[in-house]
Amino acid sequence: MSLLERTLERIYPQDSTSRQAAKERLDNLAIPHWALGELMDLAVDIAGMTRTIHPDVTRKAIVTMAGDHGVVAENVSKYPPEVTPQMVYNFVRGGAGINALAAQAGAEIFVVDMGVAADLRELAEAGKIIDKKVGMGTGNIAVGPAMSKTMARRAVESGIEIAHDLAERFDLFGTGDMGIGNTTPSTAIAAVLTGKGVEELTGRGTGLDDEQLKHKISVIKRALEVNKPDARDGLDILAKVGGFEIGGIAGLMIGAAANRKPILVDGFISTAGALIAARIEPFVKDYLIFAHRSVEPGHKAMQEALGCRKPLLDLNFRLGEGTGAAVAMNLVAGAVAILTRVATFAEASVTEADK
Amino acid sequence: MSLLERTLERIYPQDSTSRQAAKERLDNLAIPHWALGELMDLAVDIAGMTRTIHPDVTRKAIVTMAGDHGVVAENVSKYPPEVTPQMVYNFVRGGAGINALAAQAGAEIFVVDMGVAADLRELAEAGKIIDKKVGMGTGNIAVGPAMSKTMARRAVESGIEIAHDLAERFDLFGTGDMGIGNTTPSTAIAAVLTGKGVEELTGRGTGLDDEQLKHKISVIKRALEVNKPDARDGLDILAKVGGFEIGGIAGLMIGAAANRKPILVDGFISTAGALIAARIEPFVKDYLIFAHRSVEPGHKAMQEALGCRKPLLDLNFRLGEGTGAAVAMNLVAGAVAILTRVATFAEASVTEADK
Repeated sequence: MSLLERTLERIYPQDSTSRQAAKERLDNLAIPHWALGELMDLAVDIAGMTRTIHPDVTRKAIVTMAGDHGVVAENVSKYPPEVTPQMVYNFVRGGAGINALAAQAGAEIFVVDMGVAADLRELAEAGKIIDKKVGMGTGNIAVGPAMSKTMARRAVESGIEIAHDLAERFDLFGTGDMGIGNTTPSTAIAAVLTGKGVEELTGRGTGLDDEQLKHKISVIKRALEVNKPDARDGLDILAKVGGFEIGGIAGLMIGAAANRKPILVDGFISTAGALIAARIEPFVKDYLIFAHRSVEPGHKAMQEALGCRKPLLDLNFRLGEGTGAAVAMNLVAGAVAILTRVATFAEASVTEADK
Repeated sequence: MSLLERTLERIYPQDSTSRQAAKERLDNLAIPHWALGELMDLAVDIAGMTRTIHPDVTRKAIVTMAGDHGVVAENVSKYPPEVTPQMVYNFVRGGAGINALAAQAGAEIFVVDMGVAADLRELAEAGKIIDKKVGMGTGNIAVGPAMSKTMARRAVESGIEIAHDLAERFDLFGTGDMGIGNTTPSTAIAAVLTGKGVEELTGRGTGLDDEQLKHKISVIKRALEVNKPDARDGLDILAKVGGFEIGGIAGLMIGAAANRKPILVDGFISTAGALIAARIEPFVKDYLIFAHRSVEPGHKAMQEALGCRKPLLDLNFRLGEGTGAAVAMNLVAGAVAILTRVATFAEASVTEADK
């Protein structure tokens, strides 16, 4: 049995006993009932994921997965593909958005080469990135599959390996992505798994104008027609219209779920990874926390397909890298503080409300 | 000239030169244009408030103002008034929601007795709270004024004194409140200063049922009829239908603005304080950051009257104490990190987008 199948066997739903115990404690805090709203809902979820009403989320890791996309040959992005490795160097030097926001959240960043179309071995050998390269960028999905099914499995298993490695040292995970062109495969995945039309789901990515947006829609439609991904098969969708970093993100989520670690889902690309992961094993959803709502129009439909009512933040982010996940880590820490540090009416000797 | 007038003379609008310099730097960060959305807007504001593109918001203070309300005699709250001093003790012991969330944000808490109807001198003498007591709770606004105009001025000047004291040691302020019954005077203030009807603005506070809500609306209408506050005069509104802690919060905001310190506005009660402060000096608004949108229905109208498009968070909070401000402090720190720690395209050697 392969790593993927062995890991899937270890995924269980949230623990209802811990959820109930958390809810009972929160019901009795010396505050008006449920007056800290969504952070209290989140605290119940975290108790269910971690199987304790004393969870600890101190040790935080953001895993930023990078990969390139053959579909950039179709002119679907305003940025040239060399920006992907340039940004990997920027992450390593500490100058990117994710560096600033992860530092603010007290999170460590792990940058992973899932399939950047450049030689990054010097960074891997220096221990500055994790080398899980599956290929030098994917194939152009407008003319054929992104990768073989073997490569898709390898991408997902690479994410699982990272989750297993980090699970001993970290309590809370966040996903992140870097890959010029990657809103195109992510939108294709969304079209397969949300049932919505490509027009409705497609956005301007890093800043396309109206004509470029129309062109992007036609490229995504062509990718779906050419490849005919099987909506019942997560690995098939990933292989045909996905990306290496999207597979890595899906694997990280599967690995986090198997290790009972809460994992913050960053933006549009990470949510495409979540759709793949949840297609492979639906109980992965029990470990996902949706960080924010991206500017990309398809993001809402993807989050709803995954059962998310409302993400924690709505700040008009559209950067990726893990920036939304990093900002939301503070809210997760706040939710845990409410569960573990606030006194009940009895503990605080405060009079309860009239019933 | 009194402390209030001297302080008002020191309030200037945001600095447009620093705003422009911040905007130019943010326009050139090595990310798609403005891809960190509302945190970038906030970073421009903070540069304008602090007059630098290298602001520091490391030292954070939450000031939680407590006071009692004579209008509780009209049965407008589900909790008895003794809960106000009980909660002050809970703050001091560290068991309240604000203690948990301020600790998570790295903020120090200052609890102020603005007018609790209990003897709290032992706490003040032990240095555990700040004693600015204006009275043993306000008068019942359903039958007469909350306080005299002299007391209203004293409440506001107490908040100013605290801001001046803390301005040397802290970079970022957050407001907070505790006072059983205080959504009633806050709603009355909102009715005077937003022009909306009492029915539309009045909410369930800590959990009123339909009949209790109807009663609360009638009490607020009576308070406005009996007292006839002058909508052009902030101190008159505060004296007639306000509260001691609401005046303290207004003063804290005025003092923060005079010291060019950003101040996070917590929830419904704090926003009533902001309405009073902005009525006294409109440029106070240039220093306010709206932390969240409360469950109270009037909150949105109040925020819009103050020029807030959309607050940072929307988490169904309705606790007060400063809890929303504390959670939002992490977002302010994130905004500053974006301005001060992210590299530009040139600094990071990253290729810019096609224009």
